[in-house]
Amino acid sequence: MSLKVVVIGGVALGPKAACRLKRVVPDAEVTMVDASKLISYGGCGIPYYVSGDVSDHKQLQETSFHMVRDEKFFQSCKDFKVMTETRAQSIDRKAKTVLVQSKDGAQSTLPYDKLILGTGSTPRRLPIPGRELGNVFNVATLDEAIRIKDQVAAGSVGSAVIVGGGFIGLEMAESFADMWGIETTVVEVADQIMPGFLSPSMAAIARKHLEEHEVTVHTSEMVQAIEGEDGKVARVVTNKRTINADLVILAVGVIPNDTLAREAGLLCSDRGGIIVSKTMQTSDPDIYAGGDCVVIENLVTGKLGYYPLGSMANRQGRVIGTNVAGGRETFDGALGTFIIKLFDYGFGGTGLSLPVALREGFDAFSTQVIMSDHSHFFPKHDMVSLEIVVERPSGRVLGLQGACHNGDSLKDRIDAMAAILKYRPTLRDVANMELAYAPPYGSAMDVLNAAANAAENILTGLCSPIPPDQFARLWENRAKENLLCIDTREWGNAEPYVTRHPDHWKNIPQGQIRQRLGEIPKDRKIVLLCNAGNRSYESQIALRQAGFTDPVNLQGGMGFIKQTGFDPGKDD
Amino acid sequence: MSLKVVVIGGVALGPKAACRLKRVVPDAEVTMVDASKLISYGGCGIPYYVSGDVSDHKQLQETSFHMVRDEKFFQSCKDFKVMTETRAQSIDRKAKTVLVQSKDGAQSTLPYDKLILGTGSTPRRLPIPGRELGNVFNVATLDEAIRIKDQVAAGSVGSAVIVGGGFIGLEMAESFADMWGIETTVVEVADQIMPGFLSPSMAAIARKHLEEHEVTVHTSEMVQAIEGEDGKVARVVTNKRTINADLVILAVGVIPNDTLAREAGLLCSDRGGIIVSKTMQTSDPDIYAGGDCVVIENLVTGKLGYYPLGSMANRQGRVIGTNVAGGRETFDGALGTFIIKLFDYGFGGTGLSLPVALREGFDAFSTQVIMSDHSHFFPKHDMVSLEIVVERPSGRVLGLQGACHNGDSLKDRIDAMAAILKYRPTLRDVANMELAYAPPYGSAMDVLNAAANAAENILTGLCSPIPPDQFARLWENRAKENLLCIDTREWGNAEPYVTRHPDHWKNIPQGQIRQRLGEIPKDRKIVLLCNAGNRSYESQIALRQAGFTDPVNLQGGMGFIKQTGFDPGKDD
Repeated sequence: MSLKVVVIGGVALGPKAACRLKRVVPDAEVTMVDASKLISYGGCGIPYYVSGDVSDHKQLQETSFHMVRDEKFFQSCKDFKVMTETRAQSIDRKAKTVLVQSKDGAQSTLPYDKLILGTGSTPRRLPIPGRELGNVFNVATLDEAIRIKDQVAAGSVGSAVIVGGGFIGLEMAESFADMWGIETTVVEVADQIMPGFLSPSMAAIARKHLEEHEVTVHTSEMVQAIEGEDGKVARVVTNKRTINADLVILAVGVIPNDTLAREAGLLCSDRGGIIVSKTMQTSDPDIYAGGDCVVIENLVTGKLGYYPLGSMANRQGRVIGTNVAGGRETFDGALGTFIIKLFDYGFGGTGLSLPVALREGFDAFSTQVIMSDHSHFFPKHDMVSLEIVVERPSGRVLGLQGACHNGDSLKDRIDAMAAILKYRPTLRDVANMELAYAPPYGSAMDVLNAAANAAENILTGLCSPIPPDQFARLWENRAKENLLCIDTREWGNAEPYVTRHPDHWKNIPQGQIRQRLGEIPKDRKIVLLCNAGNRSYESQIALRQAGFTDPVNLQGGMGFIKQTGFDPGKDD
Repeated sequence: MSLKVVVIGGVALGPKAACRLKRVVPDAEVTMVDASKLISYGGCGIPYYVSGDVSDHKQLQETSFHMVRDEKFFQSCKDFKVMTETRAQSIDRKAKTVLVQSKDGAQSTLPYDKLILGTGSTPRRLPIPGRELGNVFNVATLDEAIRIKDQVAAGSVGSAVIVGGGFIGLEMAESFADMWGIETTVVEVADQIMPGFLSPSMAAIARKHLEEHEVTVHTSEMVQAIEGEDGKVARVVTNKRTINADLVILAVGVIPNDTLAREAGLLCSDRGGIIVSKTMQTSDPDIYAGGDCVVIENLVTGKLGYYPLGSMANRQGRVIGTNVAGGRETFDGALGTFIIKLFDYGFGGTGLSLPVALREGFDAFSTQVIMSDHSHFFPKHDMVSLEIVVERPSGRVLGLQGACHNGDSLKDRIDAMAAILKYRPTLRDVANMELAYAPPYGSAMDVLNAAANAAENILTGLCSPIPPDQFARLWENRAKENLLCIDTREWGNAEPYVTRHPDHWKNIPQGQIRQRLGEIPKDRKIVLLCNAGNRSYESQIALRQAGFTDPVNLQGGMGFIKQTGFDPGKDD
């Protein structure tokens, strides 16, 4: 008798698991049910559909060879049955059946030998009035995306407010502002955008870049109500202001759909999410789960975490398909690797950002570097900014974040780090990582190697750093702190700063530092700086040799910090 | 008393080691000697200087902040002495001195506590007549590159022959053909270009691409003489033809400069190259060596290998600097990671190619995949072709090669693999690698994950593959072999092939395969194919389920093999 398998959920994990299973056990009887009409679409592509980069929503449902993944496709090409607009109501684990109900109310009972749960996630609901008004959206499904695009394409949206400065919120902000010229405002309750993912310094770069592209960003601000007229949204009220809005996107995160599993008595996390083993089995070994409805181990912290990402769901889906077919595949856990395109910048990361590492109890520090992605002498190149997060005193690398105009170049460095994070690498492993090098694509000493070297210099005490955000605060209080910046670049670079701030900015090019030690006051707070932090680091060594032990070095130099909007050499 | 250190060699390793040492021990007395006038240049940039991408040779000597790295720079910024045009003659290990001789013949003796050898490499000399003729070059030094560029810029070079189809040879070929319109021929003695690096399939793609850009490529061909007129080169004579040439580049590899070390009694490999420990110490613990003059462990095979790469030298230089300063840093070994730009394609790899793996005694196989670098629905994307090399039956991944028009995207996948190769990853590690994903930069299931999955399907017997090069040979003998290709794409894709080759090409779209099993002959050699190998793989499963066990699947599909020039659907 052939293996009977029921799959609940038809996006990402479900189809992947079902297809894989059918390849290993072709005569398995598989039935996939989904509550929606549209299934198996690339949900991560929704912002690009709204922006118009992807012209037809069908493209998000298509295979790379342009076949739409609908019920018919799965039947003819993948040889299994799909029931859309059919909701799973309950699981009877003793009888091994699932009760489902179709759109017209008809119920049926599906028997299973093995059951796969890919029930996904639901947008987190904000407990505020007005969220039921017209033109208030979540962007959780393709249906909703189609309605949003119809609105903006009709030209009826002049202003939009996005509640939540996470991935989906910011991607939607770009799509509104860039492609449709909509006056767009992002409201984020945390004190930075992409909290928990980007470090404060990287988030500052992202924020400035959004603002340069006419997106208004309000952080540390809470939405209290959505107000409307004639049943349609008109304004968003925060604890600080009222913002006009023809359309509102609520993008404050998602929560795992674990109710079905919970009601069936499967083990779930108190904080939400089905608990699974490394083989992706729930507490009932005949029931597998994966994707947005489960929690899995974070490979850096060892703790359970929630990773609602389409790519994760796809890889887990294959593991489930293999195991349901009788295999013994495992999925070790997650790192939280991410990348996002915001206008002309890519931002990405893997592992822990510094705030998260500290919150998790690590004795951690981070440092910033900036370097060319390709050889600096090669005509086509972009600067890559990286921040590496390190545990003290072990030198274990906990995470990496970065920004670059060339997102492919950024992804390269993030992915190389993501690849080794599960092996608990130390700085030595990253410093000597053998990345592919040719001048059109890299540097002899890659920016990733350089980041590890910079961190090691701090760890071993060779370099006394000041991070960009601390320096910006110090600069604000420069008079009170009696701050003197020593600019170790050549005069041409230093001149605008020295001219504008003669009391707080002094130029001593690196090559002259040993001869001009007498000019350096011993009673002032001294920050050494240059373009990227290297010449000033070497100057710091010369100063230390001469007995100046207090000066600190601006990590990442002016090249990094300028991206955050800090530039005292510029006209106000 | 301060630490006295002598560094022999002023390119890549030497300067890096000296600078690092001076940062850790600022009062060390360091002297660096080099036989040339020009030092510390980016040798890998030479082809781009010749092409004109880099307009001034000084750019190759400059730091990222445009300071030329000459004697004066090292003295003022790095605080150590450089003696150019000074050749190290011998090492007296007992007295701990180095005898050096300057250009004018003056000799001096430099005492050392620690000695660093960065003596580099020398182009391998071909034992053929005529190599002393004018306009026969090696491209080993910047001086030589300047002379080449002066020649081509003067317009006196109409044709060029490049002997050797390795990195430098091919980069020079591009630079001649692309920027200067010179009639360019590459002669390679092996049966493919980039032997030992690219797999035969990838090399076929590279060759076709070179030919499309007017570079003539002759493989399996040996240069026997260079002939000239009036002391200048005029022709290159091979075992197959005579080729006119106004200029010849000999680029048949380099050999380590280990004579100085050998004469000083330091342990060297029989095949050339100084032997060093993981701390980069020679058999004399007071003498360190690195870069192009040493052999180090290959991290995949465990055997000694030779890796003359500027990036390797830079990383080793830092390890040496740290250790000479009293540290305990190690350099584990090398993977042979590489990338090269050839016109509009990037080609790269890490670890072992299939021919090398087999030669090293591994029971290895490889498979090819082709997929979009970004989400296929995102407007900007390029196809990435990968070939993954795997050990049987362990599933250990031994190497990866690839090709893509977007070299940054290719480097991303190569680097992610390079990052983990030293941890002896299996297919499972690569299949579940958590790469950064967003539609503008990647796919939910990355091409690298897909390569591992495809290989695993072969390893576990789910897929019976035929690699592209074997299929091309089979097609040549299609009549004799009674070959029938079953094209599982839709009719629109299959039509030109079926029309042109009705006896050997049949169309059954994947969605119809289960209904049309009766049309598949049991007495013919059957190859299943589609665009990328996925639909045909699923069709293979359907066929097997119906009892057809012999059909094989074209790995990488028509998308991969077409890049090698194989396309029976096209007009001849």
